[in-house]
Amino acid sequence: MKALMKTSMAEGLTMVEVPEPGEPGPTEVLIRVKTASICGSDVHIYRWDSWAQSRIKPPLIIGHEFSGIVERVGEAVQTVKVGDYVACETHIPCLSCVQCRTNRMHVCRNMKILGVDTNGAFAEYVKVPQTVVWKLSKEIDPIFASVMEPFGNAVHTALVEDLTGKVVLISGVGPIGAMAIQVAKVSGAALVIASEIRDYRKALALKNGADIVIDPTREDLEDRVMRLTEGNGVDVFLEMSGSVEALKQGLKVTTNGGTVAILGLYGKEISFNVDDLVTFKALKIFGITGRKMFETWYIADKLLKHKKVDLSKVVTHVISFDEWQYGFELMMKGECGKVVMKF
Amino acid sequence: MKALMKTSMAEGLTMVEVPEPGEPGPTEVLIRVKTASICGSDVHIYRWDSWAQSRIKPPLIIGHEFSGIVERVGEAVQTVKVGDYVACETHIPCLSCVQCRTNRMHVCRNMKILGVDTNGAFAEYVKVPQTVVWKLSKEIDPIFASVMEPFGNAVHTALVEDLTGKVVLISGVGPIGAMAIQVAKVSGAALVIASEIRDYRKALALKNGADIVIDPTREDLEDRVMRLTEGNGVDVFLEMSGSVEALKQGLKVTTNGGTVAILGLYGKEISFNVDDLVTFKALKIFGITGRKMFETWYIADKLLKHKKVDLSKVVTHVISFDEWQYGFELMMKGECGKVVMKF
Amino acid sequence: MKALMKTSMAEGLTMVEVPEPGEPGPTEVLIRVKTASICGSDVHIYRWDSWAQSRIKPPLIIGHEFSGIVERVGEAVQTVKVGDYVACETHIPCLSCVQCRTNRMHVCRNMKILGVDTNGAFAEYVKVPQTVVWKLSKEIDPIFASVMEPFGNAVHTALVEDLTGKVVLISGVGPIGAMAIQVAKVSGAALVIASEIRDYRKALALKNGADIVIDPTREDLEDRVMRLTEGNGVDVFLEMSGSVEALKQGLKVTTNGGTVAILGLYGKEISFNVDDLVTFKALKIFGITGRKMFETWYIADKLLKHKKVDLSKVVTHVISFDEWQYGFELMMKGECGKVVMKF
Amino acid sequence: MKALMKTSMAEGLTMVEVPEPGEPGPTEVLIRVKTASICGSDVHIYRWDSWAQSRIKPPLIIGHEFSGIVERVGEAVQTVKVGDYVACETHIPCLSCVQCRTNRMHVCRNMKILGVDTNGAFAEYVKVPQTVVWKLSKEIDPIFASVMEPFGNAVHTALVEDLTGKVVLISGVGPIGAMAIQVAKVSGAALVIASEIRDYRKALALKNGADIVIDPTREDLEDRVMRLTEGNGVDVFLEMSGSVEALKQGLKVTTNGGTVAILGLYGKEISFNVDDLVTFKALKIFGITGRKMFETWYIADKLLKHKKVDLSKVVTHVISFDEWQYGFELMMKGECGKVVMKF
Repeated sequence: MKALMKTSMAEGLTMVEVPEPGEPGPTEVLIRVKTASICGSDVHIYRWDSWAQSRIKPPLIIGHEFSGIVERVGEAVQTVKVGDYVACETHIPCLSCVQCRTNRMHVCRNMKILGVDTNGAFAEYVKVPQTVVWKLSKEIDPIFASVMEPFGNAVHTALVEDLTGKVVLISGVGPIGAMAIQVAKVSGAALVIASEIRDYRKALALKNGADIVIDPTREDLEDRVMRLTEGNGVDVFLEMSGSVEALKQGLKVTTNGGTVAILGLYGKEISFNVDDLVTFKALKIFGITGRKMFETWYIADKLLKHKKVDLSKVVTHVISFDEWQYGFELMMKGECGKVVMKF
Repeated sequence: MKALMKTSMAEGLTMVEVPEPGEPGPTEVLIRVKTASICGSDVHIYRWDSWAQSRIKPPLIIGHEFSGIVERVGEAVQTVKVGDYVACETHIPCLSCVQCRTNRMHVCRNMKILGVDTNGAFAEYVKVPQTVVWKLSKEIDPIFASVMEPFGNAVHTALVEDLTGKVVLISGVGPIGAMAIQVAKVSGAALVIASEIRDYRKALALKNGADIVIDPTREDLEDRVMRLTEGNGVDVFLEMSGSVEALKQGLKVTTNGGTVAILGLYGKEISFNVDDLVTFKALKIFGITGRKMFETWYIADKLLKHKKVDLSKVVTHVISFDEWQYGFELMMKGECGKVVMKF
Repeated sequence: MKALMKTSMAEGLTMVEVPEPGEPGPTEVLIRVKTASICGSDVHIYRWDSWAQSRIKPPLIIGHEFSGIVERVGEAVQTVKVGDYVACETHIPCLSCVQCRTNRMHVCRNMKILGVDTNGAFAEYVKVPQTVVWKLSKEIDPIFASVMEPFGNAVHTALVEDLTGKVVLISGVGPIGAMAIQVAKVSGAALVIASEIRDYRKALALKNGADIVIDPTREDLEDRVMRLTEGNGVDVFLEMSGSVEALKQGLKVTTNGGTVAILGLYGKEISFNVDDLVTFKALKIFGITGRKMFETWYIADKLLKHKKVDLSKVVTHVISFDEWQYGFELMMKGECGKVVMKF
Repeated sequence: MKALMKTSMAEGLTMVEVPEPGEPGPTEVLIRVKTASICGSDVHIYRWDSWAQSRIKPPLIIGHEFSGIVERVGEAVQTVKVGDYVACETHIPCLSCVQCRTNRMHVCRNMKILGVDTNGAFAEYVKVPQTVVWKLSKEIDPIFASVMEPFGNAVHTALVEDLTGKVVLISGVGPIGAMAIQVAKVSGAALVIASEIRDYRKALALKNGADIVIDPTREDLEDRVMRLTEGNGVDVFLEMSGSVEALKQGLKVTTNGGTVAILGLYGKEISFNVDDLVTFKALKIFGITGRKMFETWYIADKLLKHKKVDLSKVVTHVISFDEWQYGFELMMKGECGKVVMKF
């Protein structure tokens, strides 16, 4: 089968012909890939940056955002059956640690990541443990099903609190931020304010329904937010930018007793005033990683099935698997939403 | 001033000329009424039914759903000031019981009800304790502000759980049920199913955005819900009908581990199988009364301010205070939504 | 191996010699039983009552409360390994329904019950799916480990709310009620009131730490509770009796806005005033079945490991497996706590 | 009356004779002080450090931890009556901001602090708004009632999550940390680990019931905690030290998906790796300030009334009001728990 592989410890990827994954083990599922999308971490692997060098052991088939059809199942598989239309959780849990046994398997202590620690989904077939497979509602377009994993990040982050009637600030409008804007809007947020500094992404914010887009390099975010909220600040702050400045501004404008979800990564130690920005304000801060398995998927599936969100506003390019190089170039230029490859 | 009064222990109401309420006490607020709407309980008082006979002590100015402008405030009032545009909570709490001191004043153990236990709002002026006054966002039309109190019931009931991506069943589509449909829709419910038997109300359900309206006298509700949900049932059930049959059907089609909010009143002991319908299903059931003071009002205000719900779909008649008799007749015929009187 | 079996559709059980369960399938675990305790449902099966007749298909090895040592594991088992000291969840989930995939597998829609729908644990060996196996802390005595399953019911019910500083009423002091008293006490309940009518169980309540035991046939429970709580009532009510009267009394004395957990089963439709006892009081009612898998087990294990509860106050008889007949007689007489059999 | 006052902008305090506070306003309560205890912030004011210089406007009667008897009430007071035995919340809320109206008045946006922004309780009489007065259970010793306010901090922090069966780490064992140890123990924590570096406080930790006391300057806290918890880490971490190192260590040893409450103040910007210590671990972090008004007081009162905690282990010195100078010296030396003055 064709597979996109990291074949050596160097920049780039190679489309290779490799044997299909063998028969699924008793609890494994073999999936024929229909669509797959490119994640920022795939670009890190392509570029062979320091994170990739420390984590990836070539040869490895990469890719983890995808949808497909169950081709074969192991004898003990219970979660899906042959022919099911599925997407997969990227986080492969051990099933035995305390986290796995107490409904927190998304932060399993022995986690493996699909397409990072094991062969991934940029291939005609991929083999995964039954635990990570989610049966999709048939009404969901495979183009959008491919994006269920990052969409799940958006849902997981935005649902940190019931947003009905709340004022929400979302900082950082990459594809996940854009999807979070849609989720916040559909969840009843009274006002969704986006903070973003790049023009492409400011437009993406508006396209996805942000009521207000603030560029904090051009205007005083705190002043604007306070005027918009009669001095109250925002009820909920979703930090999706990975910018320390955005984090600090967001904490500052979150109302006393408010809620903060942090999905953004800063890549280093960061410095801020916890007394003034967290403790005296009695903020609740939630670190967000992955997706609740599978409460988040259940909600994400329903939102797509019933057309509550429109991922065509985030999927900007649909290409064929053979055009993968073009897809990675788009991603590296940065001015795209999600790039989906069809198989 | 003009006031609509229960003057004697008999059917009917009388428009009378009475003195204005005196100066507000230190923690009281005098409000000039702008709009007021007729509640079902006002009709009970008009009719002088057994509940009214046991509770109402004439002479009494009735009415409790209203909006107005603060005319005068007592010297110790902190919550509002003269000129503020306000609506009021109907539940007048004692401020000293455990409930009042632990954020449950809507179920105060010594509760008084405005327009039932104290002179109410169907008058040019009404005097209330500062605790029950809510300063409204100026963007809210007084016609709709009058309905904040029953709208608050709808919000309180519907927000029993974050509805994003959930399948919701609402049984009973009077005005509150209709508003709950809107709240559920705006809160991200994937599918809102209404159950109703009267034609007028079935139409009201559709007008307010129900995705599906089921008349359980004409089709098998359980069968239909199970087909709509692939055998899963509904995630959340809002019982607003006061019908035992509706309660039992709703519990039956709520998915295991699901959530139920009961606002409907049955008026008597009712019989059902708690083992099968609640315990084995691990349902969570919430009795709903009044509105959280003032978390519910905060959300209700924001939803109206930002035009997330449209109460013109529920307010079917706007009349003048002098036309009150016509308003009560409309209510007694039953084929109306909310009837709002302008002052 | 020796096994206690329902061999025919009639009263009684038979100790038989049967083949060991075969090799575990890929996701199965073979356990050598060390201790097992007799549940009320085992007695129902012995007696061959109407429930047993409708549910049990002889021949069947019964029994589901037990501890043991993992003897062999299937090739794909991840949750435990050979030699592990374990107890098991009785609820065998399908892993594929919505409940199983969204952290509610204890109310799986396709649930099987160990020792009821499948061969159980009153045998030298029992074979179970890996999902239901819980690795026990080694500090837990096997005598008590056998009781983890009903102890889990007590923990699941009592932890319906953080009990620190709360006044708690527990109605019905069988073994699970007695364990719930201990859990409530250790969880910081300010005052634990038990309601019970049988002398043996009143003594059991006191032995397990109840602060107050009320016999509602001898004194006015409502009056006594109100005096004990300065008219406030109880914060949390755990209904474990299966008595309608106890349910109604408990709802009545639960403070407005309070919390109720129902584990008791009534065996039929029951009648009560939902308006007055639930809705106007804004009660939160939780139907409790089984144990959260495995949040409840995690807490139950920790409470036993760290000697926070003392199950010797509930395990009244420890006998050998061969003395099973004596154990069942004790259970049928009713004046015992848990009866544990050693293998 | 006698009052302990900051009379000038310099170090020290002066016992002065001043007029009693005048008649209470309509919503005010005049309290005769029975006991008062010295808070760390009183010492800051004594010392006239930079915080005190920036905040305190002499002349001012200081002191905010106290109990007393209601002497007179304003005409509109509803929460208490003359003769009631009371303690007071230090946080004086405005009653009109969003926080005050949505059950977060402990983080009111216009908060005033008793004895900091208004005349305080180190005097024979103190006058406060009715909102902040809590009627105490008569079973509570006035010596301990004086400490309700910092005890409330301990309760508020420890109850960030239901601790039953949980492993808890508490860093920093001043008086509040010591009380939090007691609260954690009584709330069912399976294991309470304290981290502290000073000998006096290590002894205080043991005296108050810590199962394990770790001095991170003498042993490797992470290694020890991991051995104690079989590699799992702690379920709940209460940061009460104000040490950045303690915060970082605590976050590190909190299990994935665990809960953190921060009461400690760092006094400056602090630096740590949010990615690794919060986000990837999916921690929930709660900034804690003050006490929930009055849910925390309700629980604190019940714990004292029913002797669930023993504050004699924290109140190390009881002196007369006239010995105030000795009390402040004890506090400044640091080797004491709470110092209570009797009036």
